[in-house]
Amino acid sequence: MVNEKPLIDVALIHYPVVNRLGETIASAVTNLDLHDIARASCTYGVDTYWVVTPDAQQQELAGQIVSHWTNGYGGGVNPDRKQALSLIRICSSLDEVVQKVTEKWQKQVSIFATCASKKHNTVEYEDVRNRLSNGEPMLLLFGTAWGLAPEVMEMVDSTLPPVKGPGEYNHLSVRSAVSIILDRLLAKP
Amino acid sequence: MVNEKPLIDVALIHYPVVNRLGETIASAVTNLDLHDIARASCTYGVDTYWVVTPDAQQQELAGQIVSHWTNGYGGGVNPDRKQALSLIRICSSLDEVVQKVTEKWQKQVSIFATCASKKHNTVEYEDVRNRLSNGEPMLLLFGTAWGLAPEVMEMVDSTLPPVKGPGEYNHLSVRSAVSIILDRLLAKP
Repeated sequence: MVNEKPLIDVALIHYPVVNRLGETIASAVTNLDLHDIARASCTYGVDTYWVVTPDAQQQELAGQIVSHWTNGYGGGVNPDRKQALSLIRICSSLDEVVQKVTEKWQKQVSIFATCASKKHNTVEYEDVRNRLSNGEPMLLLFGTAWGLAPEVMEMVDSTLPPVKGPGEYNHLSVRSAVSIILDRLLAKP
Repeated sequence: MVNEKPLIDVALIHYPVVNRLGETIASAVTNLDLHDIARASCTYGVDTYWVVTPDAQQQELAGQIVSHWTNGYGGGVNPDRKQALSLIRICSSLDEVVQKVTEKWQKQVSIFATCASKKHNTVEYEDVRNRLSNGEPMLLLFGTAWGLAPEVMEMVDSTLPPVKGPGEYNHLSVRSAVSIILDRLLAKP
């Protein structure tokens, strides 16, 4: 079965992630992470963009921003932005995301971590692209701050290869990483 | 001749660009355009990231941000960010960029516009990728706001194809567009 619409979700994790010292922290939600990743998600046919934070105030802030662009003034003056930010759902935990995504697709979902280095469970983009076009439901996890915490890396099914250019520098923003990875998996040939 | 280091520069244009009504305007420099595009440029081996604005106060603001991360406190605590933002040069006009890039490479530079729709002079990514790996010097222009003004579109040698996903939505942020286009041209095979 080849699907027109890919069964793919993106989750941006604000907890648990690590800081520069490798300690597990909760990071703050930022306005441009909401906008840029929603716009990239909308471009590539992502079904839901999950914003994951356990902090009630951060959830409220994110909710206010999304609401401004979906139900409020922003959506009226910029319908393209409304369409993109309508993909956002705010969630308390990764467990909650996995549960909701599984309910949505009514089957097991393959969970992929993204990471700046190669792991024991790293798969190739071409392979994931093929599985996606064959209708396999997927959830891609992106870490804010210095990346996903070890407990997240351990619970996923696979890890996507690090995004690299010709050199050794690989400190892309999470906004760039999401955009590039969606393009690698979902660009029109 | 196949070069290890691509001869490629990126320019982010704040004037002349268009607003949603198609009128030519000057847009404001934003902090995250400096950071995200510098980080993507550094990842893909871009030689210089030109930030183009004719406004003296905007040039000063951009200069202060860059200086904080290259010579100031920011560079000390985050050397990766220092390396990325060191690629930035602030310029008054596109003419000035073209002149400096031509002087730098000591030969004619191919200038590419980027745009959300197909143009009469649109070329293929694969073709540009090959020319780049054969040592042709290139300058890629990205527009802020609603994109590059018509006078810029008319002065370029070629236009890169619009970045599209499976659907019709193509309202990526300029940060995402730069990242995806650099990946298409310069990712390790």
